[in-house]
Amino acid sequence: MNPSARSQEEPSVFAVDHILQPRSIAIVGASADPRAFGGFVLANLERYAYGGVIHLVSRSSTEIHGHPCVATVDALPENIDLAVLAIPEAGVLDAIRALAARRCRAAVLFASGYAEAGEEGQARQAELAQVAQEAGILLVGPNCMGFTNLAAGVPITFEPMPVRARETRPGVGVVAQSGFMAANLRDALLGRGVPVTSVFSTGNEVAVAVEDIVAHYLADAQTRVITVYAEQIRRPRVFLQLAARARALGKPIVLLMPGRSARAREAAQSHTGALAGDHATATALLQREAVVVVESLDELLDVSAVLLRYPQPPAGGTAFMTGSGAMKNIALDFADSLGLDLPALTPATVEKLTALLPGYAVAENPLDYTTISVRNPGVVGELLLTMLEDAHIGNIVLAIPVGPTVAQQDKAEHIIPTIAQATKPTVLVLTGDTSPVEPFFLEAIQRSGVPLFRSADRALRAVRRVAVYGEALQRAARASAAPVQALPLPGAVPPNGIFAEYQGKAWLQQAGLPVPQGMLARTAHEAVQIAADIGYPVVLKAQASALPHKSDVGGVLVGLADEAALRAGWVQLFANVRQHRPDLVLDGALIEGMGPRGLELVVGAKRDAEWGPVVLVGLGGVWIEALKDVRLIPADMAEQDIVVELGRLKAAAVLQGVRGAVGVDLQAIAKVVALVGAQMRANPQITEIDINPLVAYPAGSTQPVLALDALVLASA
Amino acid sequence: MNPSARSQEEPSVFAVDHILQPRSIAIVGASADPRAFGGFVLANLERYAYGGVIHLVSRSSTEIHGHPCVATVDALPENIDLAVLAIPEAGVLDAIRALAARRCRAAVLFASGYAEAGEEGQARQAELAQVAQEAGILLVGPNCMGFTNLAAGVPITFEPMPVRARETRPGVGVVAQSGFMAANLRDALLGRGVPVTSVFSTGNEVAVAVEDIVAHYLADAQTRVITVYAEQIRRPRVFLQLAARARALGKPIVLLMPGRSARAREAAQSHTGALAGDHATATALLQREAVVVVESLDELLDVSAVLLRYPQPPAGGTAFMTGSGAMKNIALDFADSLGLDLPALTPATVEKLTALLPGYAVAENPLDYTTISVRNPGVVGELLLTMLEDAHIGNIVLAIPVGPTVAQQDKAEHIIPTIAQATKPTVLVLTGDTSPVEPFFLEAIQRSGVPLFRSADRALRAVRRVAVYGEALQRAARASAAPVQALPLPGAVPPNGIFAEYQGKAWLQQAGLPVPQGMLARTAHEAVQIAADIGYPVVLKAQASALPHKSDVGGVLVGLADEAALRAGWVQLFANVRQHRPDLVLDGALIEGMGPRGLELVVGAKRDAEWGPVVLVGLGGVWIEALKDVRLIPADMAEQDIVVELGRLKAAAVLQGVRGAVGVDLQAIAKVVALVGAQMRANPQITEIDINPLVAYPAGSTQPVLALDALVLASA
Repeated sequence: MNPSARSQEEPSVFAVDHILQPRSIAIVGASADPRAFGGFVLANLERYAYGGVIHLVSRSSTEIHGHPCVATVDALPENIDLAVLAIPEAGVLDAIRALAARRCRAAVLFASGYAEAGEEGQARQAELAQVAQEAGILLVGPNCMGFTNLAAGVPITFEPMPVRARETRPGVGVVAQSGFMAANLRDALLGRGVPVTSVFSTGNEVAVAVEDIVAHYLADAQTRVITVYAEQIRRPRVFLQLAARARALGKPIVLLMPGRSARAREAAQSHTGALAGDHATATALLQREAVVVVESLDELLDVSAVLLRYPQPPAGGTAFMTGSGAMKNIALDFADSLGLDLPALTPATVEKLTALLPGYAVAENPLDYTTISVRNPGVVGELLLTMLEDAHIGNIVLAIPVGPTVAQQDKAEHIIPTIAQATKPTVLVLTGDTSPVEPFFLEAIQRSGVPLFRSADRALRAVRRVAVYGEALQRAARASAAPVQALPLPGAVPPNGIFAEYQGKAWLQQAGLPVPQGMLARTAHEAVQIAADIGYPVVLKAQASALPHKSDVGGVLVGLADEAALRAGWVQLFANVRQHRPDLVLDGALIEGMGPRGLELVVGAKRDAEWGPVVLVGLGGVWIEALKDVRLIPADMAEQDIVVELGRLKAAAVLQGVRGAVGVDLQAIAKVVALVGAQMRANPQITEIDINPLVAYPAGSTQPVLALDALVLASA
Repeated sequence: MNPSARSQEEPSVFAVDHILQPRSIAIVGASADPRAFGGFVLANLERYAYGGVIHLVSRSSTEIHGHPCVATVDALPENIDLAVLAIPEAGVLDAIRALAARRCRAAVLFASGYAEAGEEGQARQAELAQVAQEAGILLVGPNCMGFTNLAAGVPITFEPMPVRARETRPGVGVVAQSGFMAANLRDALLGRGVPVTSVFSTGNEVAVAVEDIVAHYLADAQTRVITVYAEQIRRPRVFLQLAARARALGKPIVLLMPGRSARAREAAQSHTGALAGDHATATALLQREAVVVVESLDELLDVSAVLLRYPQPPAGGTAFMTGSGAMKNIALDFADSLGLDLPALTPATVEKLTALLPGYAVAENPLDYTTISVRNPGVVGELLLTMLEDAHIGNIVLAIPVGPTVAQQDKAEHIIPTIAQATKPTVLVLTGDTSPVEPFFLEAIQRSGVPLFRSADRALRAVRRVAVYGEALQRAARASAAPVQALPLPGAVPPNGIFAEYQGKAWLQQAGLPVPQGMLARTAHEAVQIAADIGYPVVLKAQASALPHKSDVGGVLVGLADEAALRAGWVQLFANVRQHRPDLVLDGALIEGMGPRGLELVVGAKRDAEWGPVVLVGLGGVWIEALKDVRLIPADMAEQDIVVELGRLKAAAVLQGVRGAVGVDLQAIAKVVALVGAQMRANPQITEIDINPLVAYPAGSTQPVLALDALVLASA
């Protein structure tokens, strides 16, 4: 299905609720064979003691496990909430029509061989979608593994599900486009004792998509964290709205979305047929709404587990605590390679820690509290809570060995209860990888709710994302909510959508962008008058909407030192352009003063048709070409946060000044990024703004930045 | 202990063998209290049914657990192999002297409070070292946790050790300076079923150090992989020799050594008192000897486990296989962010895979074999072996779900036996993190010897290191073993060790370095004659050993276009230098032709006093200053491998040519790096060579590189 053909409306939570908690279920293609799809579904429902009514449709049996069967869908009662289609593909369309006639609301279709299977499959899926829509049946799948509502005890899947008591605790809601991933996330989260409310596999998403399930989880009080695997978000604007609501509700969404690499994008494209917008833009805008975008499967699990316990982490750096000097040194290196901030503690914290520590231990972050815990395990919890009181610290990782049984008792009694009191994210690492831990100790940890890791590597990677989430919550609160005054467009939108430089620059100057002093001249005479006002030397630039890349045709002449040079240049310029583009009529030429040399940056904004506007900033030239060194900035980011993002460029040291040079004015650059973002927000017609180069001068210059070239593009 | 004061001789394997497998042990400070240090040691030996003779020294008891005690060390028999000192620090020195009188060979000292505990502790350790050395007692520790020889059943440690059958399988030998880390590595490796031969904690290394234990493991046939945690390698040259021997023996050494980050270096420095050479240099030279340098604890464990099964991995990229399109897409992204190569398969492999796969599956790397394994699990092993036959593939990761019991049976029977036949590194990932696996399935995997992971993230990180090891083995074989003809030094070594540019350049030119045409002039007249030969414009550079940074004092004049300019420049140059350095007598000035502009690189070699020579290469200016973008090249690296290293610079795209520009000649740059390395090897007196800039021109230029400035430093 073409994503743009899909409605951008909000999905119906009500309808999804009925699917996830159906009062009645019909298995179409029920079977007594426990290894048939229909057999698995029935066996699962029986094992879970499903409380609703089960109807069976079977051509071969009149009764299965004491349930009577009907021979055809037409013999089913009306108003069944959910049908499960466990039949060969050939019968699917007829079954859907027949279900519609019985006013069945929704159906789950496991079968594959649709959009993921070449052109033929795509045609089959298009027909399926149409039939289901016309019939008014809300379809789950195809090519999915169904879902399991663990809170309500409804397993609608063809995998044999082991029995579980209904989940009554607050938990994680899982949704994945891939059935494999849904099952994997379920097994992994349950395996580590993390409560899961539901697991939903949306498959090819003919109707019910990731967004619909996220909306359900937002409305579901028992779901506290939403864990998502998506290769393609079909309704980006809906997803972003849901993310904003999730933020307001304090429910983290943790998302793994392949496509960072070119090869993964190609693979996803061939897999799902279409890409919803640019991956990097999507990531920037999802992060703008505080979606926790992770980069691997381990991170998806680990961050979900930590955020379930601490859904509202503060901003702030990470503290690391251990009784081993070696662990401390390893953590220092590892945090450095992750770019994880391990901030210095305040003097007050250092003083309090010093009072708790032996003389030979150093009160710092990371903290090696040495062997003090052997005699006094209780002090570990005190040290931890003391470090968390520090305003610089947003979360903490405590790494301790499992130790012999007696030491595990000490820890269960003296350390776990204290660290369970922490209100900032606190992660416990029992070192030793998969080495055995006494059941009583594991139970004590699980009861306390403190997230347990066996790998310090994974713990540090997870808290890094948690810290980013804390930062994202604060950034969202700081983002400029104030409506921006939209400037009138620079004029009528040209046929190619590109305003000539003089128009774009004048418009951006109105918005606050510093540009060189200059004006359009239509004749050499005008040019000389303008240059006299500006003062020599001047630059001469050919101007026309159809000539955005003017230097390629000799349309830019620099360093014209006097009137004679200008007059000669004028003739030369028009000759150059005429030679390359004989048909082109110039609006004239822009005369500008020469800006001094400085550090060249690029500021570019574009509007992604699916995701919305985003502003790119980076150093020009090889920095972008060879290092892809850019930051993508949501259009409403606060200037103080843009400054932080500039500091995250690989080339940040160049901005800050290398070899003793004075750095440039980051505030002034941030102001340009912000004003470009503001205009992108205010003017939906503007599709792109390119300032290249924006020249930055040493901090303290009267003119800290100057846009030497600028293009503004709009849609008609 | 000052590392340079320590002998650089090879340690005695014989002595370490006696420590690790003592025929007799004396516990000095034996105790019936099972929670005293002495009590733990005795209880461990009893639990392990230690087969040698145990002697106890106790002031308070005459008999413990049926063992008679003597009251003092003097009452012990002679020639005991190992004494364990479980006594307060106050009695340690006397005990060591008394043990020496009884001809005891070695002693283990657990106590802390020595070099790790400030100046007082350092003094205490110095005295301890001296007393032990004078007494001829080989000391283990202090500040260590002892060791456990799992193959011989000898646990000498104060932790309560659970009983284990003696290890008879080939296994991993562990040595760590940190007791915590030794225990952690032991628990982690045993916990995942990896055989461990011994675990040794060297602590403060008064006598027995990491190198000695590595030497033991090299001689020990049962130890097949050596896993090392070291904060400081005290005898770098010994360690490098051992590493070379390990390479020859086919025994991988896997090393975690904190200090990549500035903060970890500081911490290690304050911890152990001194740093043995530069961390980056050490890493480059360790990698030269094919030491597997890892960057985290998980990697240390994971790589050790994989290399135990596959100690001789080939070079080559990684293949990834799964039945899930989602896993494939995640792997593509993850490999990209790791810089892990997932090479394309040869047409022959694609053809063979296509024959095994259903029509809708694509034969490629990574491979998604779709749901084919449900009906035909055996095909998974066939696909895997087929991919491994590909010459581009060096190792493979297979990621599959655990699945229900019946599926686990299928996998145990049909997949595991086939993949166990692989001769290239093959790693199995059972997805689902810590979700339960049937014991029969785990046993089948363990029996097969195929390394098992539960995290694809960790598996991919591990095979990346395994691939680097395979590459390092090949590089070592390619490294230039041929002796280099040492050039005679450029002259007498100046007092400051720095040869003036004209001397260094002439010398390097003899070695094969392209330099601009030029010559030293002592008078303006000579200068004019030289310039006439070279042709104008010329550069004029003041020359003196004491003036290495000549441009700071106006000692470089460029673009002198004719004789008049040269004569004026000559006067100016001498005046400039005289003004800044009135006392300095120049040797003259170097007249050189002007090289055309090109891409500026830096090639610098230095000789680390501890580790040896290494050559640095990178782009000049901000690339080094802001991005630390350099590669460190061992002095004997083959030119083809230097070219590969140049391609690993962050700025590699700049070398290869951005914006359609022609790239530079990487071979020519590699040749310069190699010739600098060769001279560093051949001339031990040379301490440093700096070529800055080395200008590189577009590939195909007649002169592909030119050294515009060069300094050679030597020790007297």
